[in-house]
Amino acid sequence: MNYCSQCGAAVIEKIPTGDNRLRFVCATCEHIHYQNPRIIAGCLPIYGDRVLLCKRAIEPRVGRWTLPAGFLENGEATSAGALRETREEANANATIIDLYTLFSLPHISQVYMFFRAELLDLNFSAGEESLDVQLFTEAEIPWDELAFPVINKTLEHYFADRQTDLYPVRYTDLEFPARKIS
Amino acid sequence: MNYCSQCGAAVIEKIPTGDNRLRFVCATCEHIHYQNPRIIAGCLPIYGDRVLLCKRAIEPRVGRWTLPAGFLENGEATSAGALRETREEANANATIIDLYTLFSLPHISQVYMFFRAELLDLNFSAGEESLDVQLFTEAEIPWDELAFPVINKTLEHYFADRQTDLYPVRYTDLEFPARKIS
Repeated sequence: MNYCSQCGAAVIEKIPTGDNRLRFVCATCEHIHYQNPRIIAGCLPIYGDRVLLCKRAIEPRVGRWTLPAGFLENGEATSAGALRETREEANANATIIDLYTLFSLPHISQVYMFFRAELLDLNFSAGEESLDVQLFTEAEIPWDELAFPVINKTLEHYFADRQTDLYPVRYTDLEFPARKIS
Repeated sequence: MNYCSQCGAAVIEKIPTGDNRLRFVCATCEHIHYQNPRIIAGCLPIYGDRVLLCKRAIEPRVGRWTLPAGFLENGEATSAGALRETREEANANATIIDLYTLFSLPHISQVYMFFRAELLDLNFSAGEESLDVQLFTEAEIPWDELAFPVINKTLEHYFADRQTDLYPVRYTDLEFPARKIS
């Protein structure tokens, strides 16, 4: 950040009065520009004993399999964002069952929120950000070709929880000390 | 938003190629300025049969009672943010038990996340943003003087769940159609 989005003057980094963190502050109009973590909302779409995965057409991790998910938009409930991403990436019709897994990734200032969702029909296809969309049984999951650790963990929880048909919501801090130190 | 925070030139509102929403885009350097919902992380600090509430010293809702909570910071896990706010607003030492209630408030682009937390000792006091900090039994909760609906709902869930000692995580979309229409 170099310039104030309010008045166009240069910003400086300083700790505002009553605060204890460095912020970008406008040297002219004194507007404080807070920066906050972003939410990635997604679905675990379920159809019988299979789950829907999307093969990524975009960076990062092109060609790897993921759950449909993306940045939550202003004015959008988290559940609505998860369903929108499912429509956009997989052209899929789903309905929310309940919240399922949450991951805080402080090293990249992101919070993932995945919802269990029921896939309503088989009319799905690859959206613009996907190369392919397929249903997978547990035995068919391409475990070594998943895009992100949060995808592995969500699927691992799901197939374990399916044994008891109980799906408690799980919150996990995913810290990466190696990156935080550098 | 009037100016590009990257190059200082004027921004315009337009739908970028491949997108379907109006964004602030720099007319000069073409940087797209996404705006996303913010997370408010907080604790429900528990000490025996009592919970800790803070009387707000700041707007909105000065003088009303709330759970310690505030905007999650970049580089911070959600649980860490909840504990930090508990320290800042109540000078209180607590430890996270588990995630408890989540509320999506799309009309103000906020997501609240409250954690059940164990208050470790009675060395608490009002922080800069609080007028007072007190412990309340269920019978003592000032229900008509709570600051926000998410506080009422979290406390209602807690005292109901305490009957069974089971505390499932609860996700709620809090839509306010009257405001959305206006």
